Amino acid sequence: MDVQKRIKISDLLKEAPIGKEVTVMGWVRTFRNNQFISMNDGSTINNLQAVVDFQQMPEETLRKITTGSCLSVTGVVVESLGKGQSIEVKVKDLEIFGEADPEKFPLQPKKHSLEFLREIAHLRVRTSTFGAIYRIRHSMIYAVHSFFHERGFYNIHTPIITGSDAEGAGEMFRVTTLDPANPPMDENGFVDFREDFFEKETNLTVSGQLEVETACLALSDVYTFGPTFRAENSNTSRHLAEFWMIEPEVAFCDLEGLMDLAEDFVKYLTRYALEHCAGDLEFLENRLLEEDKSKPQQERSTMTLTERLRFVSENEFERLSYTDAIEILRNSKPNKKKKFQYLIEGWGSDLQSEHERYLVEKHFQKPVILFNYPKNIKAFYMRQNEDGKTVAAMDVLFPGIGEIIGGSQREERLDVLQERIAEMNIPEKDLWWYLELRKFGTAPHSGFGLGFERLIQFVCGMGNIRDVIPFPRTPGNAEF
Amino acid sequence: MDVQKRIKISDLLKEAPIGKEVTVMGWVRTFRNNQFISMNDGSTINNLQAVVDFQQMPEETLRKITTGSCLSVTGVVVESLGKGQSIEVKVKDLEIFGEADPEKFPLQPKKHSLEFLREIAHLRVRTSTFGAIYRIRHSMIYAVHSFFHERGFYNIHTPIITGSDAEGAGEMFRVTTLDPANPPMDENGFVDFREDFFEKETNLTVSGQLEVETACLALSDVYTFGPTFRAENSNTSRHLAEFWMIEPEVAFCDLEGLMDLAEDFVKYLTRYALEHCAGDLEFLENRLLEEDKSKPQQERSTMTLTERLRFVSENEFERLSYTDAIEILRNSKPNKKKKFQYLIEGWGSDLQSEHERYLVEKHFQKPVILFNYPKNIKAFYMRQNEDGKTVAAMDVLFPGIGEIIGGSQREERLDVLQERIAEMNIPEKDLWWYLELRKFGTAPHSGFGLGFERLIQFVCGMGNIRDVIPFPRTPGNAEF
Repeated sequence: MDVQKRIKISDLLKEAPIGKEVTVMGWVRTFRNNQFISMNDGSTINNLQAVVDFQQMPEETLRKITTGSCLSVTGVVVESLGKGQSIEVKVKDLEIFGEADPEKFPLQPKKHSLEFLREIAHLRVRTSTFGAIYRIRHSMIYAVHSFFHERGFYNIHTPIITGSDAEGAGEMFRVTTLDPANPPMDENGFVDFREDFFEKETNLTVSGQLEVETACLALSDVYTFGPTFRAENSNTSRHLAEFWMIEPEVAFCDLEGLMDLAEDFVKYLTRYALEHCAGDLEFLENRLLEEDKSKPQQERSTMTLTERLRFVSENEFERLSYTDAIEILRNSKPNKKKKFQYLIEGWGSDLQSEHERYLVEKHFQKPVILFNYPKNIKAFYMRQNEDGKTVAAMDVLFPGIGEIIGGSQREERLDVLQERIAEMNIPEKDLWWYLELRKFGTAPHSGFGLGFERLIQFVCGMGNIRDVIPFPRTPGNAEF
Repeated sequence: MDVQKRIKISDLLKEAPIGKEVTVMGWVRTFRNNQFISMNDGSTINNLQAVVDFQQMPEETLRKITTGSCLSVTGVVVESLGKGQSIEVKVKDLEIFGEADPEKFPLQPKKHSLEFLREIAHLRVRTSTFGAIYRIRHSMIYAVHSFFHERGFYNIHTPIITGSDAEGAGEMFRVTTLDPANPPMDENGFVDFREDFFEKETNLTVSGQLEVETACLALSDVYTFGPTFRAENSNTSRHLAEFWMIEPEVAFCDLEGLMDLAEDFVKYLTRYALEHCAGDLEFLENRLLEEDKSKPQQERSTMTLTERLRFVSENEFERLSYTDAIEILRNSKPNKKKKFQYLIEGWGSDLQSEHERYLVEKHFQKPVILFNYPKNIKAFYMRQNEDGKTVAAMDVLFPGIGEIIGGSQREERLDVLQERIAEMNIPEKDLWWYLELRKFGTAPHSGFGLGFERLIQFVCGMGNIRDVIPFPRTPGNAEF
């Protein structure tokens, strides 16, 4: 293995150093006519064509060049006369690192269903589709950090194991080292969590927001980017038990400033994808077009992948109040003709993804930000408006999926916050430290949350959320 | 609140726009002589001096300007005649966002012990020390992503909840939704994990390495950066139950390539800190000098903070085999004079931090990379050398702390790996997918792990690991 001489396929295709001898290492995608090896090393969606002279090559070696095998080829770069590539490598030396028995290797050069590939999550990354998704996922991670770093935000690692059970965003997983068969019991017959590792009951976090607010009220502009968990028994294409979330929190920022930030943020991300992931997007766009062909007309995407990304990055988002949105929806055709699954009766009801999509795709034909929601359908920490009925919350709505971002100005007034948590029967002692942020040097501040996998679904055009995270965790499934 | 006009203190001090009217928002650090407000907004270690004309300001407002209160000041920027700053703001308007009752606010302008500050982790970020640590932590996060991104690595989110119990790196936390008091039992009297959320027993990950190898053997260059967990009852200044780890994994890379990568990586990080965090480092350097004054001579740091960072970024690392290191240590003065707590008897024993530090600080006076360790003290996945006794493992050793990075070339040969896991009594079925990576298209590859908090301790000069993560989790402690 002569690593010094190795060149990545992405660099090789970019530089196209005709006449130069290079060494390429990667995995065989196909081997045609005992002559043409199509190789990929993960650095790009594009494969390299390596051409062997089968008359010079031992039979035994040729037999080992199969789909999935790993090898190193050394040879001169020449112009390619074949279709689909401009250069190829004329193989002089070939070393086989690892074979892949065609009788056993599950990834053969044919179409595999996404369901089948989920069963072999350790291998699916070797397909073009998942290679593209993983690379885009990386690009989006990097873009998230770049966006915030450029604006002077600090990334804060909020805790994963939390002793706070007031987050209220959903069902939690317990974290424990107690003997599951014989838990210690206290004098009242309850499990004695004082004997547990942390000497109390602890859970996996459902959101880093409350904790990141502590940093916000000292450093001004902060964000989290970490895993969050929901122990909900939802076996849908939109839910994961473990997913990654991005939560910026900004001091001295009101709802309008927050909407500006959210719009800038998703525009930055979609523009970044268009500029930096062109090859992978093109591949996934074609994949989506193919997939759509097998669907009934009304389930097909109305926009191609790049059209959808431009829809976000190029349009000015429509901003309107929840109250105005309800009016539009109540008078809309699908509501009057009872085409909505959930009919809009009047003010106060929660919006479903069908309503959100109607506003974005049909009514405004641009991304929409709704704000000032009824307080009864929102969380305790959202800032109450003067009308006494609404809170300064906002949701960003996207085509195809509906809500992608949810956020709010936070209630910074101690007395109003205390009243609200009393109304909602949350014990004050569970939030003692959160309330202290309002007791000492409180400040107006706002923040939002973006589910990272939803974003990747949108950018990659994948219908099932299990296909945009390397090892999805869902009810009954924690393989690997 | 006029957010449009707000300028961050870092920008204000950099631009120094004499004569211009600006608005600054932040928290009061001190208020002297009813006149001089020292304000901080977290954008920099430096405070802004805002000068009020107490004769023009209502008594009642002046009384509310106390340490910890949050306010907005608007006024003209003027040159400062006072010591310690070049500009100041002559306050025209002042708005108080949040008061901080001096009788109750725990952070008064005096020295607080680090132990006390740990009790109020939600407020300690408002001190200069923790503001500096959080900012440096952010810079290091960003530098990690930049380093790998520039080199074509992809960030992979490996799972936090794992169904794999073969990682073997330590005690694990169980993740469950079973009723803790009345767990379901199976026909043999064991807890029936088929009834649990994932229909099997699951734990929090101790390392993403095994999972990230799946991506490595498709995308070539990948890395993880995520939380990892150890349920070990170690109440020391070096251990956390929850900490962040960085684990690159590189295909077509041998041990030498890995040592190059590790050296480049930590040099990049320390250089990044020197170049981008000068103000915060200066503050922490002085903090450390102060702290050292109260310590006995032999416990004081031999280098200042910046000297230590340059020691890493400017020296070529010494590379030597474990075997050579044992020879040096066996013949060293502290070994002969029995000054080591653990005496080096001969080949085969594990090295302690005192030995590692001796090699770095006394013998070579530069960072050291040891390689080719005895296989019996290392993990099952490390590649066996031809001598049959050692594995292609390496550790990077730093002054002050000893090991900061541990890594190895991975065993890519299926038969050798199977033999090793049999020797170590690991059931093959627990590693079926890991073994398949060697069955299908195996490739030489290598990787290492860096404990992120150890790095932050090193860069910030903090003796206790609980002071470099926002909300430390340790035995008996999961507050917030």
